[in-house]
Amino acid sequence: MNFTLRILGTASAMPVTGKYQSAHVLDVHGRSFLIDCGEAVQQQMLRYRIPIMKVDSIFLSHIHGDHLFGLFPLLSTMGMLSRSVPLNIYAPNNFGPVLKFFLSYYGAGLNFEIRFTPLTMKEPEVILSTKSVEVLSFPLNHGLDTYGFLFREKEPQFNVRKDAISEYCLTLKEIGTLKRGEDVIREDGSMVKASEAAYKPYSPRSYAYVSDTAPFPELSSWVKGVDLLYHEATYVQEFADKAAARHHSTTLQAAAVAKEAGVGQLVVGHYSSRCKDISLFEKECKSIFPASHAASDGDLFDLPMKDFQGRK
Amino acid sequence: MNFTLRILGTASAMPVTGKYQSAHVLDVHGRSFLIDCGEAVQQQMLRYRIPIMKVDSIFLSHIHGDHLFGLFPLLSTMGMLSRSVPLNIYAPNNFGPVLKFFLSYYGAGLNFEIRFTPLTMKEPEVILSTKSVEVLSFPLNHGLDTYGFLFREKEPQFNVRKDAISEYCLTLKEIGTLKRGEDVIREDGSMVKASEAAYKPYSPRSYAYVSDTAPFPELSSWVKGVDLLYHEATYVQEFADKAAARHHSTTLQAAAVAKEAGVGQLVVGHYSSRCKDISLFEKECKSIFPASHAASDGDLFDLPMKDFQGRK
Repeated sequence: MNFTLRILGTASAMPVTGKYQSAHVLDVHGRSFLIDCGEAVQQQMLRYRIPIMKVDSIFLSHIHGDHLFGLFPLLSTMGMLSRSVPLNIYAPNNFGPVLKFFLSYYGAGLNFEIRFTPLTMKEPEVILSTKSVEVLSFPLNHGLDTYGFLFREKEPQFNVRKDAISEYCLTLKEIGTLKRGEDVIREDGSMVKASEAAYKPYSPRSYAYVSDTAPFPELSSWVKGVDLLYHEATYVQEFADKAAARHHSTTLQAAAVAKEAGVGQLVVGHYSSRCKDISLFEKECKSIFPASHAASDGDLFDLPMKDFQGRK
Repeated sequence: MNFTLRILGTASAMPVTGKYQSAHVLDVHGRSFLIDCGEAVQQQMLRYRIPIMKVDSIFLSHIHGDHLFGLFPLLSTMGMLSRSVPLNIYAPNNFGPVLKFFLSYYGAGLNFEIRFTPLTMKEPEVILSTKSVEVLSFPLNHGLDTYGFLFREKEPQFNVRKDAISEYCLTLKEIGTLKRGEDVIREDGSMVKASEAAYKPYSPRSYAYVSDTAPFPELSSWVKGVDLLYHEATYVQEFADKAAARHHSTTLQAAAVAKEAGVGQLVVGHYSSRCKDISLFEKECKSIFPASHAASDGDLFDLPMKDFQGRK
């Protein structure tokens, strides 16, 4: 029942020796979601032993090359590996012609369906709902169609306490009732209360990916309370003018979102090649939001199961 | 006056951990020629300190992704680096629509001209001639339009011997005459023979790039006598059936071309991910052609100046 984020690249558009461009892999209960596809994402997946064939869905924030150019090599490899399972791609509308062109030239080797869902929402919307996770997408402010993504684990079923099973001699049918969070009412009128015999094993975990964006008012409410927030911080504060001119964020702007949203932990990346000292990114973020981390390529965030916080 | 080849990738289409795909950089007298553009070629150029802006011309053997997908990230980077010098691209005709689509989506950031020369020849033809080098292209046999390239240093001017300058009290005009290889005839009827006072400082060096191909009869005559021959050897001999089915070559086929062509040195690469032991490629090649080398990513071949072999 893992909830694990691997950051595959922390560079921005200008290539830097040994740093790769934006790509994250979120693994939820063994299901892999790939978020953005900077160049050589497949090399990074090999390096960190992430099975290429396990990718279930791909989420592209926007079509800038540093978030996209690794996609086509990856799709070609999936074709060579004889993938047959459909692949979901969620991306802005303007990705459509890019995909169409790729398929017209390189699609012959792909024997799997690509299900492209164009993103057009003006505020957060659920775009995918599986047994274990719900994914929302929301618009960002980057000068062209750009979207962020929020992955939220679904609330688990109730578990039934072992001691309650023996204490009340629960039948399988009664256990099923308790697992749905319902009280058991027996023929003799006695009752086994779900609130006593059952419990939620954990609280849902959540991760938000805020790709390239300048600040905008709604953002912190859209990522409110997530356990882990990735927010781009292309520049340290010294280059705030460049951030504004290029629809990007600074360290302090990213940290302000984290603070206002009350997230568990902030991770920043997408560093400009101008800013060589990554520790400065972390220092500046921490001045506003102490639980900040400036990511390096390959960083792993394994979110532990949380005790359930709501109604038991 | 260097003539240096750097091999940036030796993998074939299926990605392998830590090995990159086809890309070579040939540097002739300080001018860089990039041959094929596998994914992450720009990362490899950074790693081996090859200035991206020094690339003068790009030669693409064919449009398969493992020879091409690194091109667009590279062009984008040249745009970001404010390249203004035109860039020559020599590639098969079917690269045209690929380039056109790229430029329609990502061309806005490129403020330099791309001069695309489509390759359509049936036998070797000169496609580029500079002060120091001549480049020929010739068709290969890979099931789709695919070309090889031959880079040949131009014959140098004559140098005039220092001792002859003092012995004959040569004037600047007379030195110029000797540099063109012509005899000096003085007003008094005396003669300074070019064959005695002047010499060619070196013999032209040459490199041939034989990309993906199945064997075909004309090939060895087209690369006859080159100093350095790169010939793909996707498979060791055990997989000869796969090589044939996929229009590729085996070690022994590559070595047979080297032997028949009488080249100075053979380098092989483009290894199938099935064949893990690179030393076996070299061993098999050497059984036919002893001066064989199985390349690794990053290998450097610095061809020394050769004493002039022809008429002095």
